[in-house]
Amino acid sequence: MTNRLEEFSAYRSRMNERIGQIDHLGLKRFFNLDSAAYRDGALDGKTKELLGLVASAVLRCNDCIDYHILQCIQAGWSDEQLYDALNVALVVGGSIVIPHLRHAVETIDLARR
Amino acid sequence: MTNRLEEFSAYRSRMNERIGQIDHLGLKRFFNLDSAAYRDGALDGKTKELLGLVASAVLRCNDCIDYHILQCIQAGWSDEQLYDALNVALVVGGSIVIPHLRHAVETIDLARR
Amino acid sequence: MTNRLEEFSAYRSRMNERIGQIDHLGLKRFFNLDSAAYRDGALDGKTKELLGLVASAVLRCNDCIDYHILQCIQAGWSDEQLYDALNVALVVGGSIVIPHLRHAVETIDLARR
Amino acid sequence: MTNRLEEFSAYRSRMNERIGQIDHLGLKRFFNLDSAAYRDGALDGKTKELLGLVASAVLRCNDCIDYHILQCIQAGWSDEQLYDALNVALVVGGSIVIPHLRHAVETIDLARR
Amino acid sequence: MTNRLEEFSAYRSRMNERIGQIDHLGLKRFFNLDSAAYRDGALDGKTKELLGLVASAVLRCNDCIDYHILQCIQAGWSDEQLYDALNVALVVGGSIVIPHLRHAVETIDLARR
Amino acid sequence: MTNRLEEFSAYRSRMNERIGQIDHLGLKRFFNLDSAAYRDGALDGKTKELLGLVASAVLRCNDCIDYHILQCIQAGWSDEQLYDALNVALVVGGSIVIPHLRHAVETIDLARR
Repeated sequence: MTNRLEEFSAYRSRMNERIGQIDHLGLKRFFNLDSAAYRDGALDGKTKELLGLVASAVLRCNDCIDYHILQCIQAGWSDEQLYDALNVALVVGGSIVIPHLRHAVETIDLARR
Repeated sequence: MTNRLEEFSAYRSRMNERIGQIDHLGLKRFFNLDSAAYRDGALDGKTKELLGLVASAVLRCNDCIDYHILQCIQAGWSDEQLYDALNVALVVGGSIVIPHLRHAVETIDLARR
Repeated sequence: MTNRLEEFSAYRSRMNERIGQIDHLGLKRFFNLDSAAYRDGALDGKTKELLGLVASAVLRCNDCIDYHILQCIQAGWSDEQLYDALNVALVVGGSIVIPHLRHAVETIDLARR
Repeated sequence: MTNRLEEFSAYRSRMNERIGQIDHLGLKRFFNLDSAAYRDGALDGKTKELLGLVASAVLRCNDCIDYHILQCIQAGWSDEQLYDALNVALVVGGSIVIPHLRHAVETIDLARR
Repeated sequence: MTNRLEEFSAYRSRMNERIGQIDHLGLKRFFNLDSAAYRDGALDGKTKELLGLVASAVLRCNDCIDYHILQCIQAGWSDEQLYDALNVALVVGGSIVIPHLRHAVETIDLARR
Repeated sequence: MTNRLEEFSAYRSRMNERIGQIDHLGLKRFFNLDSAAYRDGALDGKTKELLGLVASAVLRCNDCIDYHILQCIQAGWSDEQLYDALNVALVVGGSIVIPHLRHAVETIDLARR
C-alpha cells in the first residue's frame, strides 16, 4: 500500500474516532448499521462488498470507492473481477464516472504493490 | 406477472424498437454495450445483474429497478437475496431510497405471482 | 385531504407493512433509525421535519416531499414558512427542482383542504 | 400535440400561476432568472434550449425534458439534431438515462403529430 | 480558524470577485438571489442557514458544507445542534454522505479553535 | 496553460493508457463510444462539446468540466459564450454548482494564459 491510501485510511480512522467521541446516538447507530450491511446474510459478505463498490462508483464518491476496493481485495476478488464490476458501473453511470474509474484503477494498483 | 410489469415491458419493447428505427449509430452502439455489460466475463452474468439492481436502486430509477429485478429473478436470485441487496442500496443511498424500496418489493411480489 | 395524498398514504402504509413482514433485520433497523432521526434532540422535531423537507426537495423525491409536508403541517409550520423553505431548496437545487416545487405547492393546497 | 403533452402543459401553466399567487419574492425572481437564461446573449437562445435539454436529460427529469423538447422544436432544431443531443446525454449520463431517452423520443413523436 | 478554512475562504472570495468582473447579468442576479434566500423572511435567517447546511450535505458538496457551517456558527447554532442536523442529512442521504460528515465534523472543530 | 491543467492532463493521459492496458473489451468500447459522441453528426462537434460542458457542470464533475473547457476553447467558443453556457448550468443546477463555476472560470483563465 502506498501514500495516498495510507493517508486516506489514517484520516478515516481519526475522524471516525472523533465522530464516536461526539456520542450522538443516531450517528452511532448509523455507523453500526453500515457495518452490519456487509456481513454474511442471504448474500455473503464478499458479494455485498462488490455491491458497495458499484454503488459507490455510480454515486461517484472516491473515498467510498477506495474503502470498498480495499474490502473487495481482502474478500478475495481479483483485479479482473473488479474491472468487470467497474465496467457495469461505467455503463450504468456514464462517462461522468470515468474520472472515478481512473481513480479506482489507480487505487487497485496501489493496493496490490 | 401482473399489469404494472406487463405494461412496463410492453412500453419498453415498443420504445426500444422505435429508438432502433431512428438508426443513430451512437444510440445503437450504446444499447449493444449495455447488453454486453451483463454477459458472463470475469464475473458471471448473475452477479452482474445484482450489481445492476443495486446501481439502479441507489440512482433511484424505478424502471431500471424493475428491469433488473426481472433479470435477477430469471438468473436465479431468491427473494431473500434480493432483499439483502436492496438493504445494501438502502444503507448506501439513505432514506431517499425508501420509496424505491417499496416499489422494488412490490415488483418482486408481482413477478412471483 | 384529497385523493392523491390519501392514495399515497395508503400505499405507503401497505408497503411499509409488507416490508415489515419480510423480517430483514437491516431493513427494520433502518426504518427505526429513520423515525428516530426526526425526534426531539439537540434540535426539536419540528425543525428536523423542515430539514427533511428541504433534503427531499433538493434530492427531488416527490413521495418524500409529500411525507415531510404532511409532517411539517402537523408540526405547526405555516404555508408561508414552507414556501420559504422550498425557496431555499429551489436556489440550492436549481430549476430542475421546479417540477417538484409545483408538486409540493399542490400538496400543501391538498393537505389544507 | 397529443394528450400527455397537453396535460403536462396545462398542469404546468396552472401550477406556475398558483406559485405566482403565493407572491414570494424569491420564487418570483427565480422564475424570471430561469426565463432570462434562455434568451439570446453571447450564445443564441436556440443553442441554449439545446443545453437545457441535455442538462435535463442527464439530471433525469421528464417534465424538464418535455418542456425543453417543445422549446427546441419551436426554436427550429430537427429530430435528428435532438437525437444527436440526446446521444451526448446518454453517453455522459449512462444507461440510467435510457428510460428518459424513451420518454424523450416519445415526446418528440407526440409533438410532431 | 485554521489553514484549510482560511484557504477556502480566500479562494472563494478571490473567485467570486473574478466572477463579478465577468459582468454577466445572469450570474450576478443568481449570486444576489442566493444571498437573498438566507435572509429573514417567513423563516428566520438562522433556520435557513441550517436548511442550507443539510441541503449541501445530502448533495455532497464539501465547499458548500464549509460555507454553511461557518454561517451556522455565526448564526448561533451549537455544535450539538449541527451534529443533529448532520444526522438528518446522513439518514436521508445514506452512507455515501459519511465522507462529507467526516469533513463537516473536522470543519466544526477547525472553526471553533 | 498552467500547472493545475497540465497536471490534470498528464494524470488523465497516464491513467487512460493504464486502463487501455487492462484490455477489458467493455471499457475499451465505452471509451470509443465516448469519443465518437462528440464528432460531427446531425449536430457539429463544436456544439456537442458545449453540451458536454453543461452536462459536466450540472453533474458537478471538475475533471469533466476541465476536459470539456479545453475542448470548447479548441473548438472556437469564446469566453463570453462559455460563461453564457455556464450560466444555463447554474440556473438548471442551482447554487450547489457555484463551487464548480469558480473552478470553471479559473480553468478558462488558466487555459487562456
